[in-house]
Amino acid sequence: MRFEVLDMPKIDGPRLIADLKTLRAFGATGTGVVRPTFSEVDMAARRWLAGRMAEAGLEATIDGVGNVIGRSRNAGPAVLLGSHTDTQPRGGWLDGAYGVMAALEVARALPDLAIDVASWADEEGTHWSFLGSSSFCGEDVVGDAGVDAAIAGAGLAGRSKARLEPGRYRGYMEAHIEQGGVLEAEGKRLGVVTHIVGARGFDLTFEGQQNHAGTTPMALRKDAGAAAIRFAHAAQTGLAGVAGPASVWTIGRMAFDPGAPSIIPGRASLYLQVRDTDAGQLRRMEAHIEALIADHDRGGPCRVILAGYDDGMEPTAMDEGLQDHVAAACESHAPGQWRRMPSGAGHDAQILARRLPAAMLFVPSIRGISHDFAEDTADADLALGCQVLATAVASILGR
Amino acid sequence: MRFEVLDMPKIDGPRLIADLKTLRAFGATGTGVVRPTFSEVDMAARRWLAGRMAEAGLEATIDGVGNVIGRSRNAGPAVLLGSHTDTQPRGGWLDGAYGVMAALEVARALPDLAIDVASWADEEGTHWSFLGSSSFCGEDVVGDAGVDAAIAGAGLAGRSKARLEPGRYRGYMEAHIEQGGVLEAEGKRLGVVTHIVGARGFDLTFEGQQNHAGTTPMALRKDAGAAAIRFAHAAQTGLAGVAGPASVWTIGRMAFDPGAPSIIPGRASLYLQVRDTDAGQLRRMEAHIEALIADHDRGGPCRVILAGYDDGMEPTAMDEGLQDHVAAACESHAPGQWRRMPSGAGHDAQILARRLPAAMLFVPSIRGISHDFAEDTADADLALGCQVLATAVASILGR
Repeated sequence: MRFEVLDMPKIDGPRLIADLKTLRAFGATGTGVVRPTFSEVDMAARRWLAGRMAEAGLEATIDGVGNVIGRSRNAGPAVLLGSHTDTQPRGGWLDGAYGVMAALEVARALPDLAIDVASWADEEGTHWSFLGSSSFCGEDVVGDAGVDAAIAGAGLAGRSKARLEPGRYRGYMEAHIEQGGVLEAEGKRLGVVTHIVGARGFDLTFEGQQNHAGTTPMALRKDAGAAAIRFAHAAQTGLAGVAGPASVWTIGRMAFDPGAPSIIPGRASLYLQVRDTDAGQLRRMEAHIEALIADHDRGGPCRVILAGYDDGMEPTAMDEGLQDHVAAACESHAPGQWRRMPSGAGHDAQILARRLPAAMLFVPSIRGISHDFAEDTADADLALGCQVLATAVASILGR
Repeated sequence: MRFEVLDMPKIDGPRLIADLKTLRAFGATGTGVVRPTFSEVDMAARRWLAGRMAEAGLEATIDGVGNVIGRSRNAGPAVLLGSHTDTQPRGGWLDGAYGVMAALEVARALPDLAIDVASWADEEGTHWSFLGSSSFCGEDVVGDAGVDAAIAGAGLAGRSKARLEPGRYRGYMEAHIEQGGVLEAEGKRLGVVTHIVGARGFDLTFEGQQNHAGTTPMALRKDAGAAAIRFAHAAQTGLAGVAGPASVWTIGRMAFDPGAPSIIPGRASLYLQVRDTDAGQLRRMEAHIEALIADHDRGGPCRVILAGYDDGMEPTAMDEGLQDHVAAACESHAPGQWRRMPSGAGHDAQILARRLPAAMLFVPSIRGISHDFAEDTADADLALGCQVLATAVASILGR
């Protein structure tokens, strides 16, 4: 497949970087940004963004869940571009902010096309993960008092909610930093996302009997820490046996109670997370873990309890047609310097993909760091990603 | 070997229990006791104890490190009996208190013999483990500003330190709760201690690279948590292979940093402790662990660092002659209801054993619980232990 890109749009790199730096000032903390959803700085950033959208000729609104939507006044067909401007508790300056400002720059670079720009509320889940993109897709969060209070506290109660207009869009596209080290390790500058991984989380508790570590013979022990170590090791080695090429598995948390040198732990806990782009592979890993929990619980002497289970993320394929447009734009601007790859992190694009063809474009993360004050990407890569997005949009809209 | 106990002393069980209950009131917190060394309640308890010693006809002093010594006015040969009245941060009502009050009761029950009674300062190490018994044995803690300040804060600065009088004692004896579940599990009421275990502690740090758990492929990871799990499992299984019959090993603490579900741990730590009554066996376990640390560090991808090493406790044998006196007293008061056994916990007796023949007697801990508010022992067992101690003392002093 080959796309002709005869009349390429030209984005304004310095303008993009300047906008990103202005946005960074809302909640700036050292080199990082602290801008949790519905905080004062977050709302101030949303108002600033709506103003920048209006200056670009878009019809800008902040809706009833905090989404900032800049709707094109041009006739369709349209594309929808976006990401999110909220951050992790100690976040970086780019994360979702890059995708939002790149979207606005594309709309400015292609003033005659119908390009809508969105900043989705609370992607990071300060109150509810993917709150804004879910609402836009008609999946309202109802009956959660914390979310309702947060929305009211931000002064948004009673506002109407923006909804996806059926038939308006050829697709949704989101630019984002990679948040991993694959592109940098391979010397690539762009990633065309094939899938967004699904994830399952297992929050496990091991119950034994707390006791003195000197006076309790090995045979009389119910050591919850030893049980957790046995399980964790079996999970690490066992999952390697059932994993596919894109599988990852992580024990990110492990703790013993009371956690003293001379006390046999009476309780232990660990959090095991698995991710894969393939739903069948994810199910196989999940089944393996479920069998392991049952085995270790039955084997004793400690109980193994599934205290929490998180099935919040489903594997999501990106649209192949849109991917090809993006890939062609990559090859035209950076020949040989791009690759197709999965996204190991969740993104609003996985919500939008339930209703629209969706695609994502990655730019490299320096040293693979994200969700951290040290998060960064070279200015040239930020500009290149935005240029590729513009070219892909022009191609999708048949310009 | 057979001892004739013709004229057995008779201890006053209710008086012992009443004294224990009075002492319990100093720092009582629910069913437990909070009486850390040199706290106000601890010093008040020491003054009360000195008063009770004086009422029993002993020459009572509180020395320059807080030891409460009740010296008999009778002519020798003498025995020295004792334990400690300080507690863990959230301790039980018996622990060392039982041995001190039982010692005083034995002195009262045998008013014609030379029986000295001691409450050793800071066995539990609020400021310095075994501070009082070490000082009494001539092993002064010097140059520790914290200890000096604590002693001064308790109003003890400048007081003379009680010292072991060479030639005075036939031995040192200490009654204590078992702090484990062996006696209860076997339906025994008394334990004659053969050895006090030695211990070694290894405080390990694993250094990797913190990263996003979704976006970092398995092959690019330096997962400090996974390295800690691998090491912990190898240690648990490997030590089982080199262990002797009395060996115990415990990973009491294990923690990942930052400890979040979606973050690959950049650091992890664990504390591994081994104990044995036999010095050679302890050395074999230690060598096994040292080799394991070197292997895992060399094997990568994470560094394994020995951040702390504790060799504070040496295995200590109890005197066989004294053990036989205690065993004969057990058999005479509770035929078949006693056993010889090691002590898995450290005690002041291990310090005194450097200078004197030493012995220990255990009474059962209900459900094996100690260093906990729930710590308890049946009144009948407390009285029986005290009676056995009195009979053994009479036998040792040739009455």
